[in-house]
Amino acid sequence: MNGPADRAQLALLLEVAGTPKPGNVDRDRDLPDLRFEHFLAGAIGARAGLELAEAGEPVGVAFERAVEGMATQRGGNTQFGALLLLVPLVCAAAQGMTRSQCESVVAETSVSDAASFYRAFDHVDVAVDDPPPDAPALDVRRGADAIPAVRERGLDLQSVLELGVPDDDVAREWVTGFERSFAAADRLADRDGPIADRAGSVYLSLLAERPDTLVATRHGESVAADVHERAATLADRNAFERDLTAVADFADDLVAAGINPGTTADLTAAGLFIALERGSITV
Amino acid sequence: MNGPADRAQLALLLEVAGTPKPGNVDRDRDLPDLRFEHFLAGAIGARAGLELAEAGEPVGVAFERAVEGMATQRGGNTQFGALLLLVPLVCAAAQGMTRSQCESVVAETSVSDAASFYRAFDHVDVAVDDPPPDAPALDVRRGADAIPAVRERGLDLQSVLELGVPDDDVAREWVTGFERSFAAADRLADRDGPIADRAGSVYLSLLAERPDTLVATRHGESVAADVHERAATLADRNAFERDLTAVADFADDLVAAGINPGTTADLTAAGLFIALERGSITV
Repeated sequence: MNGPADRAQLALLLEVAGTPKPGNVDRDRDLPDLRFEHFLAGAIGARAGLELAEAGEPVGVAFERAVEGMATQRGGNTQFGALLLLVPLVCAAAQGMTRSQCESVVAETSVSDAASFYRAFDHVDVAVDDPPPDAPALDVRRGADAIPAVRERGLDLQSVLELGVPDDDVAREWVTGFERSFAAADRLADRDGPIADRAGSVYLSLLAERPDTLVATRHGESVAADVHERAATLADRNAFERDLTAVADFADDLVAAGINPGTTADLTAAGLFIALERGSITV
Repeated sequence: MNGPADRAQLALLLEVAGTPKPGNVDRDRDLPDLRFEHFLAGAIGARAGLELAEAGEPVGVAFERAVEGMATQRGGNTQFGALLLLVPLVCAAAQGMTRSQCESVVAETSVSDAASFYRAFDHVDVAVDDPPPDAPALDVRRGADAIPAVRERGLDLQSVLELGVPDDDVAREWVTGFERSFAAADRLADRDGPIADRAGSVYLSLLAERPDTLVATRHGESVAADVHERAATLADRNAFERDLTAVADFADDLVAAGINPGTTADLTAAGLFIALERGSITV
């Protein structure tokens, strides 16, 4: 491991290797059109963008490049959300892997970063909520077409992501100093055993903590709440260690219902990166 | 995917994701001290060396750097043999992914490449056979200590690897224009379905073709022959498609006996790279 880009790639790989991660592709689970190998290729493709982040290039440029490379596989969107967390974390890592450094990276984003962020949506289909009622011009699904509106309003990337809260818990990390990402890193370090097992366990703890916003976007808040409650019940009785069959049943049920808590997987990847970067976990 | 280094890393990842690969770590199998995550980290660590190969640096320098990086994880030797195939293949790829180009890369190796190859053994423990009786000074296990003898005899890396035949089928690739690696690539392209499944199937076909030389080194030729025959029986009746349980049983037996056909996995990785590089498989 040489630098943050290496560790960010490894975090992407360890995230998808973490098993079981109910509802998501993992080492034991492919979905019909989204397979483990697509995530491997996505992690390789994201490299160039992660290197830009490591080299001190603007967050937006690095993110767009990472997404463009990630999308050079046939599975579609594998790691858009994870990269939206990892890129600023890699930018911060050069100055020390602290929450305040991450806050500085976010605070220093520009309108150009926001424009790059919108361009990233042209590279891959991403499931997102409708924009705020007063801001249809800023709908991220418009991709680069929304850039004139972004520039007109002088929105930097931090401001754009603030618009995404509370519907998107990846955006929420940007406005909370990556609160849950750092908490996930601490949990990964506190657990024992293979890192991929810890990733599965921490994923469940994150899903137990808050409803997954991607599930809410796709299936509604009630479904997201149900999934969250079931995860909380499993986490409360430490099912990951004591009753892995119950976790596997949960995984089967989510897959059968087509429910994919992708935001929670993104947060797991971010936690893995922070812990690898700090050296509090090693492979 | 930008270039050969990307595709070589992806080949390493797809190889270890290929399941079942009896006797080896794969998506469904960890060994007690050698886990899937070690292979993920090994593939990330190898990056810098693979980039040197892509950039046209000497084979030996690129190989030593790749091994050094691969070894920055706690599982030990994960991909030494695979890298000894991938590095010259990446060097060749810039000029076109053909067997004659690979032969040129091998023919052009120097004494310095051989010295780097010996240094690579200082980074990680590798299971190898005894050297030829007339050449104890050239025992690769001596690492850099053997370099004076290499220089004195004026051995280039091609000549050093010729000494390894017939005990090592990775070395054999160097003297046969990567015959089996290219054959594996053709088989990967001819099969259908997810690439990781094809990798498992082609692995079995390779093991059915010739006894694994790592198994022979560690357990003797008789054991290697038995493993090969059982693989041949399974491959003959197309068990990978028709009776995966029998393949899984084979895998269980090999793991229980501590038998690891690592050379066959290395050849699978090489085949994956060639097929990715040619575009005859895509993820």
